[in-house]
Amino acid sequence: MLQHPPAEPGMREDEVETPALILNLDAFEANLATMARRLKGRNVALRPHAKTHKSPVIAHLQKAHGAVGQCVQKVGEAEALAWGGVSNILVTNEVVGARKLARLAALAHVATIGVCADHADQIDALDGAAAEAGARLTVYVEIDVGSGRCGVTSPQEAADLVKRIADSRSLTFGGLQAYHGGAQHLRRFEERKAAIVSAVGIVRATLDALEQGGLPCPAVTGAGTGTFDLESTSGVYTEIQAGSYCFMDADYGRNFDENGAPVSLFRQSLFVLGTVMSVTRAGSAVIDVGHKGVGVDSGLPLVWEKPDIAYAGASDEHGNLKFTPSHNGALKLGEKIRLVPGHCDPTVDRYDWYVGVRNGRVESLWPITARGAMT
Amino acid sequence: MLQHPPAEPGMREDEVETPALILNLDAFEANLATMARRLKGRNVALRPHAKTHKSPVIAHLQKAHGAVGQCVQKVGEAEALAWGGVSNILVTNEVVGARKLARLAALAHVATIGVCADHADQIDALDGAAAEAGARLTVYVEIDVGSGRCGVTSPQEAADLVKRIADSRSLTFGGLQAYHGGAQHLRRFEERKAAIVSAVGIVRATLDALEQGGLPCPAVTGAGTGTFDLESTSGVYTEIQAGSYCFMDADYGRNFDENGAPVSLFRQSLFVLGTVMSVTRAGSAVIDVGHKGVGVDSGLPLVWEKPDIAYAGASDEHGNLKFTPSHNGALKLGEKIRLVPGHCDPTVDRYDWYVGVRNGRVESLWPITARGAMT
Repeated sequence: MLQHPPAEPGMREDEVETPALILNLDAFEANLATMARRLKGRNVALRPHAKTHKSPVIAHLQKAHGAVGQCVQKVGEAEALAWGGVSNILVTNEVVGARKLARLAALAHVATIGVCADHADQIDALDGAAAEAGARLTVYVEIDVGSGRCGVTSPQEAADLVKRIADSRSLTFGGLQAYHGGAQHLRRFEERKAAIVSAVGIVRATLDALEQGGLPCPAVTGAGTGTFDLESTSGVYTEIQAGSYCFMDADYGRNFDENGAPVSLFRQSLFVLGTVMSVTRAGSAVIDVGHKGVGVDSGLPLVWEKPDIAYAGASDEHGNLKFTPSHNGALKLGEKIRLVPGHCDPTVDRYDWYVGVRNGRVESLWPITARGAMT
Repeated sequence: MLQHPPAEPGMREDEVETPALILNLDAFEANLATMARRLKGRNVALRPHAKTHKSPVIAHLQKAHGAVGQCVQKVGEAEALAWGGVSNILVTNEVVGARKLARLAALAHVATIGVCADHADQIDALDGAAAEAGARLTVYVEIDVGSGRCGVTSPQEAADLVKRIADSRSLTFGGLQAYHGGAQHLRRFEERKAAIVSAVGIVRATLDALEQGGLPCPAVTGAGTGTFDLESTSGVYTEIQAGSYCFMDADYGRNFDENGAPVSLFRQSLFVLGTVMSVTRAGSAVIDVGHKGVGVDSGLPLVWEKPDIAYAGASDEHGNLKFTPSHNGALKLGEKIRLVPGHCDPTVDRYDWYVGVRNGRVESLWPITARGAMT
């Protein structure tokens, strides 16, 4: 069941039912503009990752700021976007299983659909599904550039897979998928730079192998919010897949920039709004947001603009707030608190609605159409 | 958007699209029967906690095994159950906010609705909302019996709140809410026993204070899957709120019983089914279940009946499987793997459907109606 919206347009933020996912629209729009400015002149395309936002509405706003298409991780996310009018979608992931492949191929009738592969069997299955549907799929070969997760581990394996795609009936080679997930949250700029220098080296070696095989490579796609400045100026990446930049989160806030200061290019636009629901003891209070309402995989949320209050522990439906001695007066029952999620992506995936807020008022409600789209 | 079901009745389990929430129906039904047998003759009622299962279907099956009603944590969960025909619901939580209170009071026209309070202002607000709706609400006073979360912290405070309920226009005093969440996962039986002995002492002191105030207490409700044996034989608890017993999870599997053996009263009935989607390196594989698909707040999932394979790390949509040296042969692309969730409640909350399986075939699909019901 889709949950009913926790707010209505025009309502004050403090009237919103909680927990609710709040989007500061000014900050969100500023982030879209900042990314467009930052990439200008770098000769790279922006293909934001919808695993973060899961919303055709946001995809269209990103397109208005220059995005060439969207990334997703799951076929269900691709469906939600394609059915919402997004015309160019790359599944940055391997897709395994006959039913999923049939769904993916069906989508290729209404949108340009790319997908990744790191194994010959996947390519054969994709070719079969596309042929069966009478559709064409664009296939990217995923190479492991340092994360140790998916992706082939040698240039020759990549070249073999590209050759197999070229020899297929219904597939087009799209390029290399070269995302270094493990680099995004390395804290020091120098660590992130070293990781991406290494990734770029692997990409170059792979491009060399393709060239030697007479296999043109149309694109190199990858990068996230933590490192996109590096890939986008590397000379080998042609497309940037950052997702979190539109929202940001507490964990990205723990990264440092090249001057050793906390990263500050993008603004925090995403919040979970909670309500103080129990105040039975001094120095603490209970908020109605637990780990069902905010992702804790990358640490606990922060309390926004109240540095003297800590979110000290999460159970399923409750959060324990603790006050430092400097706090003047206890939190009041019913008081609203904005939390900065530790990790934006899994937090968004718990909600059905964005509550867009401007100047303290609810301006818009956007459904999170791909919420829970895991298959 | 409700996600489409990942399976159809009659399908083999290995044909189910993944990630999927699998319910072993034999084990699930055995757990319901085991709880009924265990509580027989103890003069306590069973009111299972629907924060675990979020499904009217399961609530009705529990009623058929003797449950007197259901617990929930959120008004949205109460709505999902009441609209699904559950006639007796206790919100084991404080509810704060005018819109929520109006929704709760509205439900009291179609079901018997209980709710907790630990502050006079909550009682006044509940009374106002019930009067406004022309309904009666049953209010339980929550006492802190050791968790340090919600609940009043002295018998006198409890007595004052009970008096306030008795003096209200539209509220009925239901009893004491006395749940010790912190005791459920204490590993050793002796630790759990000591915690519940302490909780029972606090309950008794509170009952004494009510008696001195001439305030009859109709019920003492609480207990979870980790400790219900203790509360149900305590002589003071009249109602048991266990939830996880119908599913179990890896974290409950780390509790030891009074003989020092891992607890084994209930069977593992809940699984997340995943598919091996990438196999590019020796000794490891990638499965399509990350922390968006399985709760990691209480530890990583276990691989079911494959002790030589470990789920070693979760990212949003991927799980890294590692093989111990004893493993014969690599996992195959497309192979299905059952995971035992670290924590059942938040895992269920990520899915729209239970896939009920018996003898390797899909028997039934049940919607998780209260998935995401957070307000």
